[in-house]
Amino acid sequence: MNNIKSVDVKIKDGFWKFYSDLNRNNIVGNVYERFKETGRFDALKCNWREGMLNKPHIYWDSDVVKWIEGIAYVIRNAPAPEWEKLVDEMIDNIAENQRADGYFNSYFLSVEPSKIFTNRDWHELYCLGHLIEAAIAYHEATGKDKLLNCVLKNTDMVYRIFIEEQSANFITPGHEEIELALLKLYNYLGEEKHLELARFFINQRGNNEKEEKTVQRQDNLPAREITDAVGHSVRAGYLYTAMCMLAKTDSDQELQDACNRVFNDIVNHKMSITGGVGADHSGEKFSYKYDLPNSDTYNETCAAIALALFAGAMQELKADSCYGDVIERVLYNGIISGVSLDGEKFFYTNPLEIDRKKYARSTYQPICERVKVFNCSCCPPNIVRTLASISRYVYTIDEDKVYCNQYATSKAIFKVGGKDAVLKQVTNYPYDGKITFEYSGEPITLYVRIPEWCVEYNGETENGFAKFELSDGESVAVDLPMEIHFIEANPYVQDNSGRYAVQRGPIVYCMEEIDNGENLRDIRLLENGTINIVKEEGIPAPVIYMDAQRRKNSEKLYSLKNRSLINFTARLIPYFSFANRAASDMIVWTMVE
Amino acid sequence: MNNIKSVDVKIKDGFWKFYSDLNRNNIVGNVYERFKETGRFDALKCNWREGMLNKPHIYWDSDVVKWIEGIAYVIRNAPAPEWEKLVDEMIDNIAENQRADGYFNSYFLSVEPSKIFTNRDWHELYCLGHLIEAAIAYHEATGKDKLLNCVLKNTDMVYRIFIEEQSANFITPGHEEIELALLKLYNYLGEEKHLELARFFINQRGNNEKEEKTVQRQDNLPAREITDAVGHSVRAGYLYTAMCMLAKTDSDQELQDACNRVFNDIVNHKMSITGGVGADHSGEKFSYKYDLPNSDTYNETCAAIALALFAGAMQELKADSCYGDVIERVLYNGIISGVSLDGEKFFYTNPLEIDRKKYARSTYQPICERVKVFNCSCCPPNIVRTLASISRYVYTIDEDKVYCNQYATSKAIFKVGGKDAVLKQVTNYPYDGKITFEYSGEPITLYVRIPEWCVEYNGETENGFAKFELSDGESVAVDLPMEIHFIEANPYVQDNSGRYAVQRGPIVYCMEEIDNGENLRDIRLLENGTINIVKEEGIPAPVIYMDAQRRKNSEKLYSLKNRSLINFTARLIPYFSFANRAASDMIVWTMVE
Repeated sequence: MNNIKSVDVKIKDGFWKFYSDLNRNNIVGNVYERFKETGRFDALKCNWREGMLNKPHIYWDSDVVKWIEGIAYVIRNAPAPEWEKLVDEMIDNIAENQRADGYFNSYFLSVEPSKIFTNRDWHELYCLGHLIEAAIAYHEATGKDKLLNCVLKNTDMVYRIFIEEQSANFITPGHEEIELALLKLYNYLGEEKHLELARFFINQRGNNEKEEKTVQRQDNLPAREITDAVGHSVRAGYLYTAMCMLAKTDSDQELQDACNRVFNDIVNHKMSITGGVGADHSGEKFSYKYDLPNSDTYNETCAAIALALFAGAMQELKADSCYGDVIERVLYNGIISGVSLDGEKFFYTNPLEIDRKKYARSTYQPICERVKVFNCSCCPPNIVRTLASISRYVYTIDEDKVYCNQYATSKAIFKVGGKDAVLKQVTNYPYDGKITFEYSGEPITLYVRIPEWCVEYNGETENGFAKFELSDGESVAVDLPMEIHFIEANPYVQDNSGRYAVQRGPIVYCMEEIDNGENLRDIRLLENGTINIVKEEGIPAPVIYMDAQRRKNSEKLYSLKNRSLINFTARLIPYFSFANRAASDMIVWTMVE
Repeated sequence: MNNIKSVDVKIKDGFWKFYSDLNRNNIVGNVYERFKETGRFDALKCNWREGMLNKPHIYWDSDVVKWIEGIAYVIRNAPAPEWEKLVDEMIDNIAENQRADGYFNSYFLSVEPSKIFTNRDWHELYCLGHLIEAAIAYHEATGKDKLLNCVLKNTDMVYRIFIEEQSANFITPGHEEIELALLKLYNYLGEEKHLELARFFINQRGNNEKEEKTVQRQDNLPAREITDAVGHSVRAGYLYTAMCMLAKTDSDQELQDACNRVFNDIVNHKMSITGGVGADHSGEKFSYKYDLPNSDTYNETCAAIALALFAGAMQELKADSCYGDVIERVLYNGIISGVSLDGEKFFYTNPLEIDRKKYARSTYQPICERVKVFNCSCCPPNIVRTLASISRYVYTIDEDKVYCNQYATSKAIFKVGGKDAVLKQVTNYPYDGKITFEYSGEPITLYVRIPEWCVEYNGETENGFAKFELSDGESVAVDLPMEIHFIEANPYVQDNSGRYAVQRGPIVYCMEEIDNGENLRDIRLLENGTINIVKEEGIPAPVIYMDAQRRKNSEKLYSLKNRSLINFTARLIPYFSFANRAASDMIVWTMVE
């Protein structure tokens, strides 16, 4: 196996600085307020009793600790003493209420202590996985080890119960997450038992006689036999991420092959153009190949985040631009669509089309306005931790080979040949495609990902990267032509036949009723008409104005095909920025003439 | 009010002879066998007791008596002694088991006698309505009055209970039907109390303090205040038909205005191009204006039949070709799609698109193969009685004005100025649009409907009819140019934006996977390509072959808009003939270039 690792950077300016600041200044606090109101933080005190308000829920701990993980990254980016104080209090509550044997889950400790580890679908190991991730992040950011110590006590108990005693009512968790967290913990501390426990959960999954085998929980097959992305899409993404990490740690080619198969299945058959995955709202799951509906797709924000994690883990298995392409698609579109531009409201699902008239029907329809909190509020804190750690996706390094996977005005410090090296990146991306690198340090080969969207790039590439030799003090620039592209989906994607998505650089565009009037599905964009690309206040990516046509209104229900069209100027906004003004119809896949 | 009346004809040849023969020779017997197997006929003996097979259902009587009504029309068209013998036995069972006070419903008499008239949603008056229609038809066809006498006893009891005693638990029926049946009975026998009872049910509907007012049952508003077609679409169609009939009988302009409003609402906003209505599968109901989905539309066969009845009743209120247009649309498309070309199998719902891959999803999807019988098997016997009485739609007459509303090689005998007149019609419709009339009798004005589809007709029209003066021995012919038309739906019909239906004459076309391969939504028909109109064995209307294109298959999920297309010849078959070979995807609304 190779030795590719992610390199962290400081983001200095530009698109991801906008989101990094929005997170620090708004999202973090908004999620905090909503979680406080709903009693999620108080639940950590484990003193809820029947008859009190705000009864805890089996997954509340995961909401809270994902937020803590996010705060840890925020602190690492720059001090945030008020948040740190609050988190320390939360950690005190966890430490104080952790059971002597190490068990912690605020719901089971306060509501149903007799039910501990009796049902694999009750999210205990899922919550612990997030607790592990939070503990690592908080230790890394602050040096404080209280939460990490709690977690070590907890994982010791899990090791005893699941491996030594086999005394739980189940073998593997219904909702994956602990596997990747244990591998992170192993990578952080190097303790074999964490690796062993992760390996156990991955290897036993779909591979034991005791547990029912279900597509929904990805345990229909043993991990190494998986061919298709199936079932609940967040669970799937977390499992596949863990499989990559274990494949790397164990140099397990069979497991890596399974990861390749499932990654290809997702990106070739099951991913919306926004990077959203999990099209089937029933079961929040992957649908069959090429089933990518628009208005009734599910595309949970957490599933998009899980896909980024999976692609990020693949990127550490193999240097290939396809992973950065997927990460870019999902980061710029299907993840950040999950939060409003003021950082106050969230989408759980991320539809590609909204027709509010259809709400009169009884069929599933997406919500058209983001909300401040959900009952099952996994997505908002997942946004918090993702936006606070976008920096991890920029570079990977393998000895003296440095791969630039994402573009961001940033500064990276890493070691080459045992010595400090500094790589500065300056870009206006995604306004334009010019990216400049300034390097100081021992000689490196810089591989710059040439995005799949950049079909106009005509330089040489290796595995999708442009290759530059850089020595101390040298600079290099790439300039990615950034044209407007009309994208078609595979003919098997029946819902998009005859329709096209507008994409410029990494940004997928949409039209809203609020700009373009009703009956969005009837709009035809004119491929050869006037196109204006405009920088506008409040949206950190360009807005596009295009000549377009639509039919005249008619009294008749049916009439002869008629080319009598009205001209107008369509306003296309980045998909991620939809639903930021008022409830509105919206469309991504449009007609083009 | 005018004095327009339907005139019955003998159908001699052509399209409707095909369906008339299919009905007599196949459908009638197939429905009989299925109803026999399921115990529906035996239920009339009212001797079912707990523990026996084939427990009757509250609506079984309606299934059986709609079939009897159909047999009556079959007998009127030509003797059918075996069927007549069987029907006589059924009538004996009804007469024998009718309660002394006149009540008859095999379910309530044998299963729940204590529940009689306790719940308006239990279909007792609905079943009685169909019994009335059967009794009239059977009396008219055979002169036998046993069933008619049962019905008169039954309606006397209903009059006493609902008007005199008001002793039922409800005032108006949940499922309309009895209203139109009572008006038919009044028109047949002239007894005031039947008119009074019909008037009572129509006037009390949505207009009394006792009953909950619901959109689903069309009782959200009193009849004269109705503006929109709402609720369960079969119930709605039967109510609106009765409203027309009462408006005519009572010269009730207010009621006629309500009928006009609701008719316009249906044909301008809520009717599939096949004439199917009731788009919302949840509640089998009319959806909101312009909500005309394709794969998940409901379009129950009975609702299409009810629309034909409604338009037929409107046609007797006012001479306007628009009613014949709707009847034609629904007869040639959305009604006969409900039965297979061998008369053996039926559709309950009539989708405009089938994508069998979507069956993997949990959302509502239409069945793609007709079946022999349904648990709720209202549609097959409704097909039987409709196909056996198509002849009633051909002409209406108002003194010496004769309106030809539908085309069929046929012979009509009627009175003009008190003397017998004979009008023969010869046509090859819908293969071509030439229709010849031969007349003998006192002078008449013949009004021939110029169909709305025939935009190429350039003669003069009056209310949509071409007008001819005809004296004894004269002939006249119209020749309706029958071009292939590409039809677009109103821009508000969002599901069809950018798509077109192919129509030639009255026939709406579709494409099946079995002819055209998979991914039907990706097909583009070439408007200016070669088009062949072919008469083929087994389908009583032409098949169309057209130059078409589709995209090449691609490995990629997303790619740049690409005009690389494959040419092929598409086979379009009449919509009514889909699903006659094997389970197959199907599409009506297609792309056209």
